[in-house]
Amino acid sequence: MNLLIINGPNLNMLGKREPAIYGSDSLLEVNNKIEAVATEKGITVSFVQSNSEGVMIDSIHNAMGNYNAIILNPGAYTHYSLALSDAIASVDIPVIEVHLSNIHAREDYRKTSVTASKCIGQISGFGYYSYVLAIEALCKKLGK
Amino acid sequence: MNLLIINGPNLNMLGKREPAIYGSDSLLEVNNKIEAVATEKGITVSFVQSNSEGVMIDSIHNAMGNYNAIILNPGAYTHYSLALSDAIASVDIPVIEVHLSNIHAREDYRKTSVTASKCIGQISGFGYYSYVLAIEALCKKLGK
Amino acid sequence: MNLLIINGPNLNMLGKREPAIYGSDSLLEVNNKIEAVATEKGITVSFVQSNSEGVMIDSIHNAMGNYNAIILNPGAYTHYSLALSDAIASVDIPVIEVHLSNIHAREDYRKTSVTASKCIGQISGFGYYSYVLAIEALCKKLGK
Amino acid sequence: MNLLIINGPNLNMLGKREPAIYGSDSLLEVNNKIEAVATEKGITVSFVQSNSEGVMIDSIHNAMGNYNAIILNPGAYTHYSLALSDAIASVDIPVIEVHLSNIHAREDYRKTSVTASKCIGQISGFGYYSYVLAIEALCKKLGK
Amino acid sequence: MNLLIINGPNLNMLGKREPAIYGSDSLLEVNNKIEAVATEKGITVSFVQSNSEGVMIDSIHNAMGNYNAIILNPGAYTHYSLALSDAIASVDIPVIEVHLSNIHAREDYRKTSVTASKCIGQISGFGYYSYVLAIEALCKKLGK
Amino acid sequence: MNLLIINGPNLNMLGKREPAIYGSDSLLEVNNKIEAVATEKGITVSFVQSNSEGVMIDSIHNAMGNYNAIILNPGAYTHYSLALSDAIASVDIPVIEVHLSNIHAREDYRKTSVTASKCIGQISGFGYYSYVLAIEALCKKLGK
Amino acid sequence: MNLLIINGPNLNMLGKREPAIYGSDSLLEVNNKIEAVATEKGITVSFVQSNSEGVMIDSIHNAMGNYNAIILNPGAYTHYSLALSDAIASVDIPVIEVHLSNIHAREDYRKTSVTASKCIGQISGFGYYSYVLAIEALCKKLGK
Amino acid sequence: MNLLIINGPNLNMLGKREPAIYGSDSLLEVNNKIEAVATEKGITVSFVQSNSEGVMIDSIHNAMGNYNAIILNPGAYTHYSLALSDAIASVDIPVIEVHLSNIHAREDYRKTSVTASKCIGQISGFGYYSYVLAIEALCKKLGK
Amino acid sequence: MNLLIINGPNLNMLGKREPAIYGSDSLLEVNNKIEAVATEKGITVSFVQSNSEGVMIDSIHNAMGNYNAIILNPGAYTHYSLALSDAIASVDIPVIEVHLSNIHAREDYRKTSVTASKCIGQISGFGYYSYVLAIEALCKKLGK
Amino acid sequence: MNLLIINGPNLNMLGKREPAIYGSDSLLEVNNKIEAVATEKGITVSFVQSNSEGVMIDSIHNAMGNYNAIILNPGAYTHYSLALSDAIASVDIPVIEVHLSNIHAREDYRKTSVTASKCIGQISGFGYYSYVLAIEALCKKLGK
Amino acid sequence: MNLLIINGPNLNMLGKREPAIYGSDSLLEVNNKIEAVATEKGITVSFVQSNSEGVMIDSIHNAMGNYNAIILNPGAYTHYSLALSDAIASVDIPVIEVHLSNIHAREDYRKTSVTASKCIGQISGFGYYSYVLAIEALCKKLGK
Amino acid sequence: MNLLIINGPNLNMLGKREPAIYGSDSLLEVNNKIEAVATEKGITVSFVQSNSEGVMIDSIHNAMGNYNAIILNPGAYTHYSLALSDAIASVDIPVIEVHLSNIHAREDYRKTSVTASKCIGQISGFGYYSYVLAIEALCKKLGK
Repeated sequence: MNLLIINGPNLNMLGKREPAIYGSDSLLEVNNKIEAVATEKGITVSFVQSNSEGVMIDSIHNAMGNYNAIILNPGAYTHYSLALSDAIASVDIPVIEVHLSNIHAREDYRKTSVTASKCIGQISGFGYYSYVLAIEALCKKLGK
Repeated sequence: MNLLIINGPNLNMLGKREPAIYGSDSLLEVNNKIEAVATEKGITVSFVQSNSEGVMIDSIHNAMGNYNAIILNPGAYTHYSLALSDAIASVDIPVIEVHLSNIHAREDYRKTSVTASKCIGQISGFGYYSYVLAIEALCKKLGK
Repeated sequence: MNLLIINGPNLNMLGKREPAIYGSDSLLEVNNKIEAVATEKGITVSFVQSNSEGVMIDSIHNAMGNYNAIILNPGAYTHYSLALSDAIASVDIPVIEVHLSNIHAREDYRKTSVTASKCIGQISGFGYYSYVLAIEALCKKLGK
Repeated sequence: MNLLIINGPNLNMLGKREPAIYGSDSLLEVNNKIEAVATEKGITVSFVQSNSEGVMIDSIHNAMGNYNAIILNPGAYTHYSLALSDAIASVDIPVIEVHLSNIHAREDYRKTSVTASKCIGQISGFGYYSYVLAIEALCKKLGK
Repeated sequence: MNLLIINGPNLNMLGKREPAIYGSDSLLEVNNKIEAVATEKGITVSFVQSNSEGVMIDSIHNAMGNYNAIILNPGAYTHYSLALSDAIASVDIPVIEVHLSNIHAREDYRKTSVTASKCIGQISGFGYYSYVLAIEALCKKLGK
Repeated sequence: MNLLIINGPNLNMLGKREPAIYGSDSLLEVNNKIEAVATEKGITVSFVQSNSEGVMIDSIHNAMGNYNAIILNPGAYTHYSLALSDAIASVDIPVIEVHLSNIHAREDYRKTSVTASKCIGQISGFGYYSYVLAIEALCKKLGK
Repeated sequence: MNLLIINGPNLNMLGKREPAIYGSDSLLEVNNKIEAVATEKGITVSFVQSNSEGVMIDSIHNAMGNYNAIILNPGAYTHYSLALSDAIASVDIPVIEVHLSNIHAREDYRKTSVTASKCIGQISGFGYYSYVLAIEALCKKLGK
Repeated sequence: MNLLIINGPNLNMLGKREPAIYGSDSLLEVNNKIEAVATEKGITVSFVQSNSEGVMIDSIHNAMGNYNAIILNPGAYTHYSLALSDAIASVDIPVIEVHLSNIHAREDYRKTSVTASKCIGQISGFGYYSYVLAIEALCKKLGK
Repeated sequence: MNLLIINGPNLNMLGKREPAIYGSDSLLEVNNKIEAVATEKGITVSFVQSNSEGVMIDSIHNAMGNYNAIILNPGAYTHYSLALSDAIASVDIPVIEVHLSNIHAREDYRKTSVTASKCIGQISGFGYYSYVLAIEALCKKLGK
Repeated sequence: MNLLIINGPNLNMLGKREPAIYGSDSLLEVNNKIEAVATEKGITVSFVQSNSEGVMIDSIHNAMGNYNAIILNPGAYTHYSLALSDAIASVDIPVIEVHLSNIHAREDYRKTSVTASKCIGQISGFGYYSYVLAIEALCKKLGK
Repeated sequence: MNLLIINGPNLNMLGKREPAIYGSDSLLEVNNKIEAVATEKGITVSFVQSNSEGVMIDSIHNAMGNYNAIILNPGAYTHYSLALSDAIASVDIPVIEVHLSNIHAREDYRKTSVTASKCIGQISGFGYYSYVLAIEALCKKLGK
Repeated sequence: MNLLIINGPNLNMLGKREPAIYGSDSLLEVNNKIEAVATEKGITVSFVQSNSEGVMIDSIHNAMGNYNAIILNPGAYTHYSLALSDAIASVDIPVIEVHLSNIHAREDYRKTSVTASKCIGQISGFGYYSYVLAIEALCKKLGK
């Protein structure tokens, strides 16, 4: 199994940005932890991070034919990017939305997602382990 | 580790109720699958199901001292039971909110949760596997 | 034909509660009038009254296999009990929502129903005769 | 007893219009079924259908002195015609609002009625039988 | 004078639940303090606590004929239980709504009460002393 | 000076309709009182009443070239008839909106007018004298 | 007859303030025109202008026993001063609300009045002649 | 091909009404321009204009069997006539909604259409050429 | 203990203003009753009443150093005076908000308070006894 | 005449994305059809597609001096990109907004456009023919 | 150049009021710092502070002819005083709105200003330096 | 001191875009004026302009370690870019939000900022001088 993990705006600032909320690991460290778990399960993961809505849409489009599934953390785009939502709907790959923090326990505008309705499901609040849980869910779903 | 799994209103109708959304397994079958996974990990799970808000609140209160964590599927109470929300806040046990279906992809009134903000996180959309992922998250968190 | 009539919160106070709105008959007297009409038509009716959302949900679930149809007056739960709404959707029995008073002519919050959308129809404003009309509608529908 | 049945906009298209929702009977066939029931009870019914708000208001005004009661299906005017609502309030005849389909189970804008608050009650969701139930309710009320 | 004090959901957790907001006294200790004040005034008080909306409604109904007045802390039901609101309106006993914390200084959803409009008044923000103030108000009102 | 006075829906029921709000004079009596005042001032008045939005719009259009000004009581159309509002804007004749009752002291939906913004002004709350005041205002404005 | 005319905030700037909307007359000139009409009718008028909500409330209270009626232009307080609204309700003198400009044709926030519901009626849009029309209405009402 | 062009309220005032927005052509001149284009394409067009919602609904109903398609400019009814919306849904003829001005660039209440959702599409902002573009679209669609 | 009792707009009209709601005592009589209770407890009370927001703010500021606590009835300013709310927050003296009538049982706009969130608590609905209860609460709090 | 056709996010997925809504042609095929029509009319068209808001804004800016007009399908940006809206306003070239599907008949959030108010007009619902109609409209407008 | 600096409600409490937000300087100290900067630039400044809306409006009116510009800190009146907003619009002197704290980073109700739209601009968040920046902006604007 | 000035979407069109609002200077001319002032104060400024949300976020991230402060004009992104708001929160550099025009005096949607709450303050309405005032504020703050 071949997974694409897409991280959206400001996630490149992990470790530097509000560690009380997001933890002190850098994005690289988070990715390494995820990769370790994946490797153990015989899964290949690729990582993309971009602050640009357009680049993220391109990544989703290009995943078709190249990956079995996408794990997507849309960052703040979660709450208003109808374009990203359309992009998810436009591909035939299963997508799971993840969040490091529990978005349901934060500011009101972070509680609704315009992208989750186009995904299989949403996992929110478990730090890097949200991604691990998403991998488990994909293994289950894709019968691996 | 000793887990309490609380299922809310109408979940006793699983298998009989809208199988296109909730699957064809009965609650017993779902519970058995969850228990099988838990046992394999050396975890004890207990199951409670009630259609009554008050009974669910009682179960949460009584879990203190008896369980290490709660996995809670509040059913339709998710969307309006501030009393359940307060109950979660009143105990010191970690609680994870789970849903069989992806509530973010259904009717608008199912997209907001008044209970999730008092939980560690929310996992939504993976059928009985939502519960399994919650167990994984709790193992991780509680250092088991 | 075997009918279950479920009355929700505060309907046990009929006769004592705001008679200008609800009339001076007690719930027993209302039930007797309904039963008299039903008996004349060769229909058996059973009556349940509860102030508890959970007990009402249980009654709806248990009706499956035991009753041909349900006549439901959800009282104030009409306006916010999504759990009751899910319960109606979870059973295969026809349900008709009735109200003693014309809820469309009262406070704004009484004008919308979260349960009626899961019923065959709604009859509102005819006192105990709302139940009688519901029985007629069920006779027609069930071909009796 | 002398009844006036007023049908509002687009009801002349019955049978031709969205039969999945409204059934395959034409308005004439619906009216004939209603008249048959009425005749059996010794009640005279007259039928008016108009697509015009003004004509419907005129009919309600002119009913005074000529009819004992009105059964009104305001069609889409149900949801915004404050003028029709004022017309009902301006006459001393009992009016019952009926709908063929269960308006509480359709689009959101069909769930609220600006006219029902000026009527005795509302019956919604039983096809042509909504009118029959209204006749029963009027017989009961007018002591026939 | 014979008073009924009804405490709603989660108040059994007093002392254990968020002491920064609710204080460190248990419900028993709070009740003892209230009873001491009452006894001094020659008033008998009975205490009921329930997490269930239905049980609370039953208690209000049953108070008729047995108590001179009710002091009600509806907990989180304050904000959405129209059924509880109807229950208060259905009895002829004076009811005062009380809150331990100042609900007007907390989350937005805690600032509106659907039950207070059916009570004589609301006292909010004085810890267990809110109950004492309510007793004083009832003494005054009932001419004791 | 030649004035057209247009009365909208349900005003033909004056005297018969809710006399506590609208007074006990019939429309004919109201019109006679207005005409007496007008005649005294050497002004000719014509009266139109219709329950139909379309007919009212036609009357406004046809006033061009035939009348110096219009006094308009749009009845319940005041609150939603954007078509009537457009009609007023489409003619070059001054229009004054009048109401018998004080619409600002009634139901919320009667407090806003979609037509008044296209008129010179609005006079509300003085019974038939609202029309007389409008005539005075037009005399002043048109320099008579 | 003895009338009090109260003008609210910024009306002392008449003539200087946005003449395109309010005309080029100063408040003194407007008052002189009104007084001339009143004197002709044998009516005494007194004028108060204040930019202060508190002073306006005092003037309304003090009018009791000293004046037969009040003509009130609350200026921008029209749209939010609940205290002024309570003041009108607290006196037994008839009050008419007037506006120089047609408030229904201006910014949205100027279209609703929190004070008019406590007045006999509202006259809006006729410049200083709004006051003259109010005097006429009061003469009619008070039988002068 | 046989087309029906229905123009709604106030469009009979074209040329006289706010020419800065609607142009200086009369409705007759606009119709002539449209007819010239249609004739050139071998298409017969009929024109209906009415200020009455009811008459417009009648025209839509009567078009069935007599016309291949309808071009509809609902004027201000666009924004609130649910009855017109139902009428479009009740016939099997393709309907295109057109507007002379760009309704998306005007007052907020002109930006939403309750009728367009029942049409094939909407063309807005090109003066009489909106109708010509609609004819082109129908030719394309109907394979002419 | 030295208390300042501030009464806001229109409270000088007590006894004269809507006695059904506010009782028939004048402000002086209410104050005398309060003072009698206070004197008995050895507490000195001073009374201020003003219809002016600015004067009320001045009184709150000047209380610092001169009084131990404030009992504040902000009248209609309760619902919109953010300036008064800031004034309460700007002093270090405990403030309790009181209302004669039960504001939660009246018009919607009276149900929310912009000032209560800056107070210790709110007591509403007990006539002059609301002030007495506030004195009790302050005695308790200030350890007297 | 030299036209620029800008297609926004996800339109590169045409044919692959939800063909039930958007048809089975790829973007290239759609463009070819449009170009064929344009060429026939002697018009040169250039095509740009981007998923990036910034790139689309750049294209609009760069069109000045290079193109006579723009046909813009903003995709999901239609509904929230105020930046795109500003970009249209900042250039002197006529812009027409087009949509393949009838956006007025889809999800609520697709019914409002923040960009159309800065365009000449909007054409919605005719598949690739929406672009052709836009070309016709531009020919007409630019006098070609 | 002659400047008037008007400070609104509660600013007399500076230094004493929530120093974490507003700093520990008293209003006098703030004014002295501002005056020192002004004097250095050869500008005369006068200071007014009032807790009363009416007095602030008077000050704005009286500034005409006496001052070249106004710097206004409306305090909490910023958010609801339409009367103050009208006052600014009624004078021909440039007004700049200033705030000590960054109102855009505080409670929601502090984020909108009903007065700023009548000013040249708004400067928010720089303590006493907000006033200094306003002086700089006025020097620039008035060409000093 | 080393400053980064970031200008968002459409600001490259300055001088060409709506000069009545934004003035006739190009962005280069504006930048030159700002740089002249900065140089005089011994401050180095760098300028970035982009129409892309993603590029602006990158610029903010990259400023860390390279600049002492940022002056940010987010253009239309001010009103909806939660991603930009998160980016400001993720860096430790002071950021001031500036606007050329007074956004509080324009369209409603321009009055709220989702980015200002993460900045030190906001300066709005002084043309290029808004940037100069921001530089002054930063000098003050950073003790230069």
